Amino acid sequence: MADNCIFCKIIAGEIPSTTIYEDEDFQVILDINPASKGHALILPKGHYANIYQLPEDLAAKAMKLAKKLAEHMTDKLQCDGFNLVQNNGEVAGQTVFHFHLHLIPRYLDGANKDLLTWNNLQYKDGEVKQLEELLKC
Amino acid sequence: MADNCIFCKIIAGEIPSTTIYEDEDFQVILDINPASKGHALILPKGHYANIYQLPEDLAAKAMKLAKKLAEHMTDKLQCDGFNLVQNNGEVAGQTVFHFHLHLIPRYLDGANKDLLTWNNLQYKDGEVKQLEELLKC
Repeated sequence: MADNCIFCKIIAGEIPSTTIYEDEDFQVILDINPASKGHALILPKGHYANIYQLPEDLAAKAMKLAKKLAEHMTDKLQCDGFNLVQNNGEVAGQTVFHFHLHLIPRYLDGANKDLLTWNNLQYKDGEVKQLEELLKC
Repeated sequence: MADNCIFCKIIAGEIPSTTIYEDEDFQVILDINPASKGHALILPKGHYANIYQLPEDLAAKAMKLAKKLAEHMTDKLQCDGFNLVQNNGEVAGQTVFHFHLHLIPRYLDGANKDLLTWNNLQYKDGEVKQLEELLKC
C-alpha cells in the first residue's frame, strides 16, 4: 500500500467505493466522475503506478477480466459500444497514480456519443445504488 | 480472413503497412492517421471484430505485448506518457471492425498535450521510415 494513494485506501476499505467485482488480484469499482453511465475501473490490489510497473502476469489477467466485464456490462447495461482506456502519466490523462483500466460503456442516445469524450457525468440520487445492484457479479 | 477487412488485407500482405513487431499471434503496425508520433496498433492475425469476439488467451497476450511495447516505445521515443485505447463499436470510435489495441505515446511539448485527443497528425516525408527504423523490434 502506497502512502496517500486514494486507490490503495479504497482497496484497504478506508475510503468507501461502489465495488461491482472482486477477486484475489483485482477490485472493480464504479468511477465517481464517470465518462458515461456505468463507467468502472479495474484496480489491481497491489500498488503499481502504471503499465510499466504492473507485472506482466497481472497485465494479462487485467485484460482477461476486462473482456469478461465488457461482456457482462454490455449485457446488463444494454450499451451500444465499449471503450477500454488505460492512461499512463499526467500528459496522458492519468490523475491517480495507481494503475487502472477504464471500462467505459458507450450509448447511441444521450450525451455521450462523441468519440472518446470524458463528460464527467453526475449520477442522480439512487443511480449508483441501482448500478451496483445491476452490475455486481 | 474476413472479406473487405483492411486489417486482414494488411496481415495478408495485400495492403502495405509499416510493421514494427510481429509474432505468431500479432502484427503491430504504425497507424496511418496517428493521434501522436509513433501511434501504433496491435492487430491479432486472426479476424475478431472486437473484444467480445477475441478469445480470452489472445486478450491476455495482447495486454502483455502492449506492456512490452509501451516500455520499448517509451524508451525509443522518449515520450512523457502513454495511452492504451481499445474501441468496440462505432459509437465508441471503432472504425475498422477487426480488434485492435491502440498504443499512443504522449508528449509534453507539441500539439498532442490534450487529454485523449485524436489529432490525426500527418507524418512528414521520411518520418514513417525513421519511426520504422527506430521502433522495429
